[in-house]
Amino acid sequence: MFEKTVVDENYVRIPKDRLFEFVVDVFKNLDVPEEDAEIVADNLIMADMRGVESHGVQRLKRYVDGIEKNAVNVHPNIRTVKESPVFAVLDGDEALGQVAGYKGMKMAIEKAKKVGVGIVGVRNSNHYGIAGYYALMAVKEGLVGISMTTSRPLVTHTGAMEKFMGTSPIAVGAPVENDHPFLLDMATSMVPSGKIEVYRRKNKPVPEGWAISTETGEIITDPRKILSPKGTILPLGGLGELHGGHKGYGLSAVVDILAGILNGATWSHHVGGTSDKHSDVGHFFMAIDPGAFGDIEEFKMNMKKFVDELRGAKKHPGFERIWVHGEKGFLTYETRLKLGVPIYKKVLDEMNNIAEKLGVQTLP
Amino acid sequence: MFEKTVVDENYVRIPKDRLFEFVVDVFKNLDVPEEDAEIVADNLIMADMRGVESHGVQRLKRYVDGIEKNAVNVHPNIRTVKESPVFAVLDGDEALGQVAGYKGMKMAIEKAKKVGVGIVGVRNSNHYGIAGYYALMAVKEGLVGISMTTSRPLVTHTGAMEKFMGTSPIAVGAPVENDHPFLLDMATSMVPSGKIEVYRRKNKPVPEGWAISTETGEIITDPRKILSPKGTILPLGGLGELHGGHKGYGLSAVVDILAGILNGATWSHHVGGTSDKHSDVGHFFMAIDPGAFGDIEEFKMNMKKFVDELRGAKKHPGFERIWVHGEKGFLTYETRLKLGVPIYKKVLDEMNNIAEKLGVQTLP
Repeated sequence: MFEKTVVDENYVRIPKDRLFEFVVDVFKNLDVPEEDAEIVADNLIMADMRGVESHGVQRLKRYVDGIEKNAVNVHPNIRTVKESPVFAVLDGDEALGQVAGYKGMKMAIEKAKKVGVGIVGVRNSNHYGIAGYYALMAVKEGLVGISMTTSRPLVTHTGAMEKFMGTSPIAVGAPVENDHPFLLDMATSMVPSGKIEVYRRKNKPVPEGWAISTETGEIITDPRKILSPKGTILPLGGLGELHGGHKGYGLSAVVDILAGILNGATWSHHVGGTSDKHSDVGHFFMAIDPGAFGDIEEFKMNMKKFVDELRGAKKHPGFERIWVHGEKGFLTYETRLKLGVPIYKKVLDEMNNIAEKLGVQTLP
Repeated sequence: MFEKTVVDENYVRIPKDRLFEFVVDVFKNLDVPEEDAEIVADNLIMADMRGVESHGVQRLKRYVDGIEKNAVNVHPNIRTVKESPVFAVLDGDEALGQVAGYKGMKMAIEKAKKVGVGIVGVRNSNHYGIAGYYALMAVKEGLVGISMTTSRPLVTHTGAMEKFMGTSPIAVGAPVENDHPFLLDMATSMVPSGKIEVYRRKNKPVPEGWAISTETGEIITDPRKILSPKGTILPLGGLGELHGGHKGYGLSAVVDILAGILNGATWSHHVGGTSDKHSDVGHFFMAIDPGAFGDIEEFKMNMKKFVDELRGAKKHPGFERIWVHGEKGFLTYETRLKLGVPIYKKVLDEMNNIAEKLGVQTLP
């Protein structure tokens, strides 16, 4: 059994199927079509199942708020703005990000299956959950999948001290013969904001080097301050250029270019949150068929050799084992399928408050 | 005037054109066709001109050694293994990496101009110089350019303590209206090995956190040890996962997948250096036409707004200004075009030794 997140008495375990049913019911009661409700539920619960609590059902309230404020369009007309056999640009019409994202990656996959490569950009969307969800959609079809999204400004860039860049995640997945897929799913900032929220909840300072004050530029560790206008997360690589902070900043800018500007969406500090009207979040999806570039079996076998070699390298005495990307998440998923999904009690209360207001059956 | 590298009495300035002529002469005397010699010279000298000394003419000796050892094929038959309107896979036939790389990105550009996107993978190649060179080729044609390459093992991955991964650079460029292009050109490791070489030359310890011992796993700062089998560079994000070391490791793995495995090339610790037979370096080139996805003028104007906004953010008191990626390199280029390219005297001696052996006119 493997659990990425330590589960303590503050958590309650809910069976995956029950949680899914609950989330679908909530969205259906907010007039979201059943098919769309299922996509969003699947995406949020996959995050929880993989141990990425920050992007799981604890975000349900934000989505509900966004819909109730009419900032999210539950009956979007997702429009194809441009299309060719290899690429497309979609206008999400302020849809739930998962709904627009699912459609985008599905198109990219169809194109890749026909012509070897598919790229779909989306503009005018919303928060789409974990980036890895979409990369995995491609992997399940035997393809390499890439997914990026712009996101609201929480991160400073090198030389600045302002919430300016998004946490701008990048996910890349690839199938592996007889093993879990390779799945990198990373914020280009030091940490995603959800990690800071976990420290806030636990009343603990975050490690040195994750964030700075927006007033003095000094390193700060108080999660409340970091999440307030007085603090900002640092890019991957940290403060300044000494340990490569300019690289995290650069990767975040690339996400703004590919997922934002290229698709006619906005960028960095202009991107809105789920409760903002016209948040204009942009996504970038790409699928590549290794069977078009070469032999698919050879690709998957070589991927297997690669990940086995990575695991078999000379081990550092300070580490228990060498992990391949995605592995912890897949193991956590398998465990939670048996034991249920741990939900933080306060989050459960919040979810049940929503349920009561909407007339949905409460958990567990 | 702007100089990224402080120039001291250990350097001699050589006019760019004279340096170009010299490098072309050296390669021609090694039986490299003139056209190919010019591509390699242009690539190496662009690195020096942009302030990336580690990838400039100081590498000439390695290339000469590789050719003299017959590890590099100066009359390659660069073969198209697979091709479609949107992608291609090339076999570099052990060509100079720049020659195979130039051909690869040129094809990607041609495809992008026709169908909006072009992807070209290359296998069986060699060290291709700075990744940014190829991204800029696309930018000069009004396209977004992406370039990645596998490279020989110098970097450890998270949980390991072994030279296992490459420094695996990623470059992304995009045109900007009335400004320098955006150009991210980064190793996915903490630093490229060339930066460690600069510290070795200056007899100075490198900053804490760049490298570890392969014997104990402890942080080490002696550049000689880091470059020996007793040391290894850390991934971007550093040791462990606390500051995101697993992200640098993951990005490096992605380069191995896209530039290596996808093209039928080898990966990570199997990749050879310029003096190794069958080093089987792999490259990944991608060009995207923003004019196909939307309006090219709008794209370039929005890029201009983006970079101006980045520069205009609230400045950190510890920094003189906020830079956009590529900017320092372009300013250094302009300065060196006027003042000449600073060459380290010992490197100049080495270059003149090569010249004397080959009967090429020595510098300056």
